[in-house]
Amino acid sequence: METRNLIGYSYLPQLGNKFKAVDPSLGTDLPGDFYAASMSEADAAVNLADKAFEIYRNVGKAKKAAFLRSIADGILAIGDDLINRAMAESGLPGPRLQGERARTTNQLYMFADLLEEGSWVEAIIDTAIPDRQLLPRADIRKMMVPIGPVVVFGASNFPMAFSVAGGDTAAALAAGCPVVVKAHPAHPGTSALVAEAVKKAAEKNGMPEGVFSILYDDGYAIGEALVKHPKTKIVTFTGSFKGGMALVKMARERDEPIPVFAEMGSINPVILLPKALEKRAEELAQLSASITTNAGQFCTQPGLLIAIRSEGLERFKKALATAIADVNSATMLTPGIWANYNKLSGSIATNKAVSIIAKSDKVNTANINQGAAVVTEITAEAFLADEKFKEEVFGPYSMLVVADDKAQLEQVVNSLQGQLTASVMAEKDELPEYKNITDRLASLAGRVILNGPPTGVEVGNAIQHGGPFPATSDSRFTSVGTSSIKRFVRPVCWQNWDEDLLPDELKINNPLNIWRLFNNQWTK
Amino acid sequence: METRNLIGYSYLPQLGNKFKAVDPSLGTDLPGDFYAASMSEADAAVNLADKAFEIYRNVGKAKKAAFLRSIADGILAIGDDLINRAMAESGLPGPRLQGERARTTNQLYMFADLLEEGSWVEAIIDTAIPDRQLLPRADIRKMMVPIGPVVVFGASNFPMAFSVAGGDTAAALAAGCPVVVKAHPAHPGTSALVAEAVKKAAEKNGMPEGVFSILYDDGYAIGEALVKHPKTKIVTFTGSFKGGMALVKMARERDEPIPVFAEMGSINPVILLPKALEKRAEELAQLSASITTNAGQFCTQPGLLIAIRSEGLERFKKALATAIADVNSATMLTPGIWANYNKLSGSIATNKAVSIIAKSDKVNTANINQGAAVVTEITAEAFLADEKFKEEVFGPYSMLVVADDKAQLEQVVNSLQGQLTASVMAEKDELPEYKNITDRLASLAGRVILNGPPTGVEVGNAIQHGGPFPATSDSRFTSVGTSSIKRFVRPVCWQNWDEDLLPDELKINNPLNIWRLFNNQWTK
Repeated sequence: METRNLIGYSYLPQLGNKFKAVDPSLGTDLPGDFYAASMSEADAAVNLADKAFEIYRNVGKAKKAAFLRSIADGILAIGDDLINRAMAESGLPGPRLQGERARTTNQLYMFADLLEEGSWVEAIIDTAIPDRQLLPRADIRKMMVPIGPVVVFGASNFPMAFSVAGGDTAAALAAGCPVVVKAHPAHPGTSALVAEAVKKAAEKNGMPEGVFSILYDDGYAIGEALVKHPKTKIVTFTGSFKGGMALVKMARERDEPIPVFAEMGSINPVILLPKALEKRAEELAQLSASITTNAGQFCTQPGLLIAIRSEGLERFKKALATAIADVNSATMLTPGIWANYNKLSGSIATNKAVSIIAKSDKVNTANINQGAAVVTEITAEAFLADEKFKEEVFGPYSMLVVADDKAQLEQVVNSLQGQLTASVMAEKDELPEYKNITDRLASLAGRVILNGPPTGVEVGNAIQHGGPFPATSDSRFTSVGTSSIKRFVRPVCWQNWDEDLLPDELKINNPLNIWRLFNNQWTK
Repeated sequence: METRNLIGYSYLPQLGNKFKAVDPSLGTDLPGDFYAASMSEADAAVNLADKAFEIYRNVGKAKKAAFLRSIADGILAIGDDLINRAMAESGLPGPRLQGERARTTNQLYMFADLLEEGSWVEAIIDTAIPDRQLLPRADIRKMMVPIGPVVVFGASNFPMAFSVAGGDTAAALAAGCPVVVKAHPAHPGTSALVAEAVKKAAEKNGMPEGVFSILYDDGYAIGEALVKHPKTKIVTFTGSFKGGMALVKMARERDEPIPVFAEMGSINPVILLPKALEKRAEELAQLSASITTNAGQFCTQPGLLIAIRSEGLERFKKALATAIADVNSATMLTPGIWANYNKLSGSIATNKAVSIIAKSDKVNTANINQGAAVVTEITAEAFLADEKFKEEVFGPYSMLVVADDKAQLEQVVNSLQGQLTASVMAEKDELPEYKNITDRLASLAGRVILNGPPTGVEVGNAIQHGGPFPATSDSRFTSVGTSSIKRFVRPVCWQNWDEDLLPDELKINNPLNIWRLFNNQWTK
């Protein structure tokens, strides 16, 4: 494993502070020495990315697609070493990481396909009308162009899919933007293995040096330097509200403010309607899996359940308590995340207004940093009285808010801040009665789900993973799916431009055979 | 003329500080008393807009389209009173304002057509695949939904097209967002006349009260209150860098940060290539019109000409000097804009590195606030040495930067900040030689023009009016054309949702007959 900082095609001498990866289930160091990058290395990485941009932005779609596919192939070629290292660094189980690896490579293949299809550039052509009344119309043609170097922060909870060659990197590279990754210090080895695959793919496909770099740091200095670098144009981040907003603030205060796509906290409310509870309380208690899988360390984990007091709800609570009691504790990603989980869930549980209604009985004492599931209950009245109950508790925790009636249920929903997801568990015939509330969910969240858990984010064309502040820093974009490429581009139009000099996407005869809005008609 | 502040369908008692509109060509007060709105009125206007939003967002596209068309019809019905008032308030000539009125109403009709066609919502449908390997695929369907109340700041230089019912308002209303206008104090009467037309159209078409309000203020307090109001979701602004950034800063510092679409300064470089100068120096000198029309008070006015020293350039300068000498001075929009123009252009002209190469000889002394055209010259070396030459001088001013050679020309282009537009005047056969430079223009600007002036912004599908910072606060959006509707929407996806409860745009049988990406195929 090559653990050195990587700028373009060169691994750097190891000069900074040394740090090691830690196995969170044991607290022991893992093999491999990592060294914090220096300020001048951060500077050099972005400068090289900027230089690469001038070439990479003009690399044809077939070559870019081949590059993305090579990265995916390279990741698969690492084999079990990658899964084993990721398991050791994250505490996540093997099958989950195998699934995550498939998701990661599928994302790269998906963007390769998107590039080859080509219509994603949103080409629009209005041809000239020289004899238009009053004023002639000029020939104007518009399409999306890449913006420039992107700094990608690896996320702790997806060591592959939201990390070195995860969705952000795949989308940025597909868009035509070079990437500098700030590796997450909780999984530097996983990062290093994937980074090597990206480097090899770039070299093999003749990509300009600097299209990809990766820097390590167990502190904040390198991340800050990368965000503040004048040639950095975009930042992506998945993590806590505090971390995301720190980056947003830095990016705003630059001479040239730049966008930060930060996916931050979300408690993903799940509304349980009365008839559904009455009819299938026990089935609904299977939400326990969505609450607790992988120690609940998902941005779409359901941290809030909302229902009206009823006999069905009592049955649901009972079934949920049984299910949760049976859930094994799981290693959390880092000691910090574990400590924070215990602090937050513990502090809420000691609140007088709160009672514990479900708790895992199966705490693994052979390992450390064990997140044990807890579900609490609170009245709607008490919930509405204190904003702190709306804060995310990252981990296998959820709170059931019990309303007296429909009006109070609506009040609770209306009190919520922006969310990634909002779900409703309902019988079909009770939905019209709650239309007020279900309509409201589209204002609240980026994804609205009927009769399903919020976890398990589909990667595709229609997915929206992003929601109103504070769930993300920009609700107009998604960080998952093909549309996530839009974070890295902006429109440019060419007026009266020379046909030969225009990008192929905008040539009249449509050599790339893409869908375009041509004189107000969608054609291909 | 109804001069009172308007919230929803109610004109308010006049309680605040009184102010009058001023004829900038004479310095005299115009008829009509306007009163600054109060803080509580600003609060009430946004609250009512938020209330209206819950209804207006669900108003069908046919009704919204009829509403927009009614506004346009109402504006036309005001007749000469509107043109005369706008002339008196802005100093702009009648034909220009007639053209601007046509543009304003055409924008409203254009958005009505866009709504009726319907495909702008970017509907994407991925149907369920219950038997997919590993994991079933859920049914997921995505489309754009309106975000909420928009605060529109009227712009001084387009009293109709970027004001009360201008592009911002038309696009926001089309998107489904209510609008609160902060009227520009330089043309309150024009604003009041148009606002009345909007109010009548809203009433006539049964729109929810609060879909439109307008407040007046000759200071900054009301604008600030509107931007800071927690229920305001989006702000649009066209004006100075300083003004735009003040709003951006306010919007960022809110508990819930919101986007400000500020179109700010731009000097719109025009590169004159050698062969074009050699072949048609005199024809190119017709740029004088683009520099001076309406006292150069356009955001796309060419404030910077860049060329390599040559005999052709000397001929261009001579022809430009002749043309500019013959340009009449014109009344500037406000005494403040006039004073600023004289201060900035005067201060540059007295710089030792700068010479005046063209100057209007025809200064109207019968009127005041007269902007007289000036073109200066500077060497590329001196230009590169001082950032102040890159600042916008709003008015009939341009600076010719003379490079020694192609390398220096490139250096000048590379030194520029983000622009709304960048133009090249070239012979076809010299373009390949300058490809480095012309390629660079797409990084620099939102619109790149060949052999044409940057002024005269086409309103259509393909237009991009927006560019990298500091030209605008967000280069990913346009403030002109059909795509400008995207500033007011965000995507929401529904997962496993009930067919009957989904918006029509997302129903499988496509009742609205719109273009959609359906299982990865564009279909209708």
